[in-house]
Amino acid sequence: MDGYRVAVVGATGAVGTRMIQMLEETSLPIDSIKYLASKRSAGQVLKFKGQDVTVEETTPDSFENVDLALFSAGGGVSKKFAPEAIKRGAVVVDNTSAFRMDPDVPLVVPEVNEQALYEHKGLIANPNCSTIQMVVALEPIRKNYGLKKVVVTTMQAVSGAGNLAIQELKDETQAYLDGEEMQAGILPASGDKKHYPIAFNPLPQIDVFEDTGYTHEEWKMIHETKKIMSDQDIQVTATCVRVPVVVSHSESVWFEIESHDASVKKIQNILSDAPGVVLQDDPEHQIYPQAINATGKKDTFVGRVRADLEQNNAFQLWVVSDNLLKGAAWNSVQIAEKLHELDLLRVPK
Amino acid sequence: MDGYRVAVVGATGAVGTRMIQMLEETSLPIDSIKYLASKRSAGQVLKFKGQDVTVEETTPDSFENVDLALFSAGGGVSKKFAPEAIKRGAVVVDNTSAFRMDPDVPLVVPEVNEQALYEHKGLIANPNCSTIQMVVALEPIRKNYGLKKVVVTTMQAVSGAGNLAIQELKDETQAYLDGEEMQAGILPASGDKKHYPIAFNPLPQIDVFEDTGYTHEEWKMIHETKKIMSDQDIQVTATCVRVPVVVSHSESVWFEIESHDASVKKIQNILSDAPGVVLQDDPEHQIYPQAINATGKKDTFVGRVRADLEQNNAFQLWVVSDNLLKGAAWNSVQIAEKLHELDLLRVPK
Repeated sequence: MDGYRVAVVGATGAVGTRMIQMLEETSLPIDSIKYLASKRSAGQVLKFKGQDVTVEETTPDSFENVDLALFSAGGGVSKKFAPEAIKRGAVVVDNTSAFRMDPDVPLVVPEVNEQALYEHKGLIANPNCSTIQMVVALEPIRKNYGLKKVVVTTMQAVSGAGNLAIQELKDETQAYLDGEEMQAGILPASGDKKHYPIAFNPLPQIDVFEDTGYTHEEWKMIHETKKIMSDQDIQVTATCVRVPVVVSHSESVWFEIESHDASVKKIQNILSDAPGVVLQDDPEHQIYPQAINATGKKDTFVGRVRADLEQNNAFQLWVVSDNLLKGAAWNSVQIAEKLHELDLLRVPK
Repeated sequence: MDGYRVAVVGATGAVGTRMIQMLEETSLPIDSIKYLASKRSAGQVLKFKGQDVTVEETTPDSFENVDLALFSAGGGVSKKFAPEAIKRGAVVVDNTSAFRMDPDVPLVVPEVNEQALYEHKGLIANPNCSTIQMVVALEPIRKNYGLKKVVVTTMQAVSGAGNLAIQELKDETQAYLDGEEMQAGILPASGDKKHYPIAFNPLPQIDVFEDTGYTHEEWKMIHETKKIMSDQDIQVTATCVRVPVVVSHSESVWFEIESHDASVKKIQNILSDAPGVVLQDDPEHQIYPQAINATGKKDTFVGRVRADLEQNNAFQLWVVSDNLLKGAAWNSVQIAEKLHELDLLRVPK
């Protein structure tokens, strides 16, 4: 075998199409590729490096002769088919929330906890988009200064809710500009009872509400951060907001560190050397990360590094990244690349 | 005299037109009204309660026989003409930042510090829009539990930057939908060097940058909050973000209180009785404040009240209000109503 036999589950979705793009660009050796999706999408023809690939309906047997399966077709699909894939010898990188908090499943952002890959039992979970870019920015700071507490407010793009949500934003926006009524059918959460317009209207709900008053998206940011950083004592609290943006999440992050010896300059230096981070921080010349500039790029962009002027161990950041790439497709393919590099791209016996 | 002779300075602007609307609805007795603006806007004809009023160019003599002058035409205009108005016997309510931090000028949100009106010397400053709605929500909590620290992230509507910024958002949005290039000429700050698209792109800059790395808008939230609440020890830090929204600011507010005896339920009860606040907080039924619902209303809408799950004296709120009404025009007219009620609508000898 020269390369891997790869399957993309959810190939027609907003993340799936980016997974294909990331696989076209990867250094990972690929022998063959298979696009899987629901029955509804089967028969569609997509490209891979210029060649036609017909989308097939996902069945257990789809995973025969597959070495690597990238899943991004919803938690239900992952729960049903990931075990079938692993049983047939495929390593699964799952972009859904189905297995993220399973103690037997590594939850990996390569820049942060690559070493967790050694523990995999056939399945590695890709964290939530909003968590990934935050931990990429905070990990180098945590390593140097310790991390006590994080208060984050996100401004998340609608593409995190899929292609239909992108279309909904565009349709509502055009209706608003034309003075017509906006029709909401998907956002804030397709599975919830009520739907509200997102055009020109930030919605402080992503995913459904928990009993605590937090949404499940906020819950994910809190608990995934602790798991990825392997530290249950880091306090994290979050407000997750959907905003009228197509691609790339922006995050306002306040954080408290253990050390009292940090400074804006030192943190900027740490970030400019950090893996996966691009520091864009020059207020004098109005340089700071923006969603439209981050879109299509694999990096996490960090700027507006500044001190809490009244607490000498607290700072703030503005963190922007393409939610479909580093937040999903790229992080998944990057995990596969790391597995290959560490000779872990096989289901352990 | 049966009523007051009122002048609106900046009558044709985004805030000015709302000031006129608020004056049409006010219980304040009004004998006559005068619309003032720049030379460029002079000659336009606007309505007041169905009657035509011709906009006049602002000159020092415009304020002869004026009892109350509402200013919202930029700091430069206020600096030049507010002293002329006061000299001629008018009480000035100024919506610009020109005099807000002057120790001799009360900075007033009637729900919070009405008593400061007794100290006025002819001029009362109206705080910054993003500050007003935050202090309306936090003051009742501060009164009950003490307030130690606030970490706020705003999502501010473009109307805060005026009518031209609204048009810029709409033009850019249409260009984006049509697949054309977006042309930015005003935002993030008309007076700054570079301009970036706001359509589908949150911009973490409102007003210009200070040496600390904070923008002047963030500086305002920090220092105006301390002044309005008469407590320099309240720690406040802010990230102010312009978002593609036409009207109404949304704010994610994390705060720490002195007391360890508060609860979500108690805070909800306090907020539901608080002046100027409408509690919209029922996650189970997806009830929370939204910009499109707050627009055109005078109240501050508060929801998503929840506990910081790892710090028992910290909580979070989602606060939404019409930035042109409570954030500007309504707060100014409300100040005038209070001055009248307290028999203070005259320049002290």
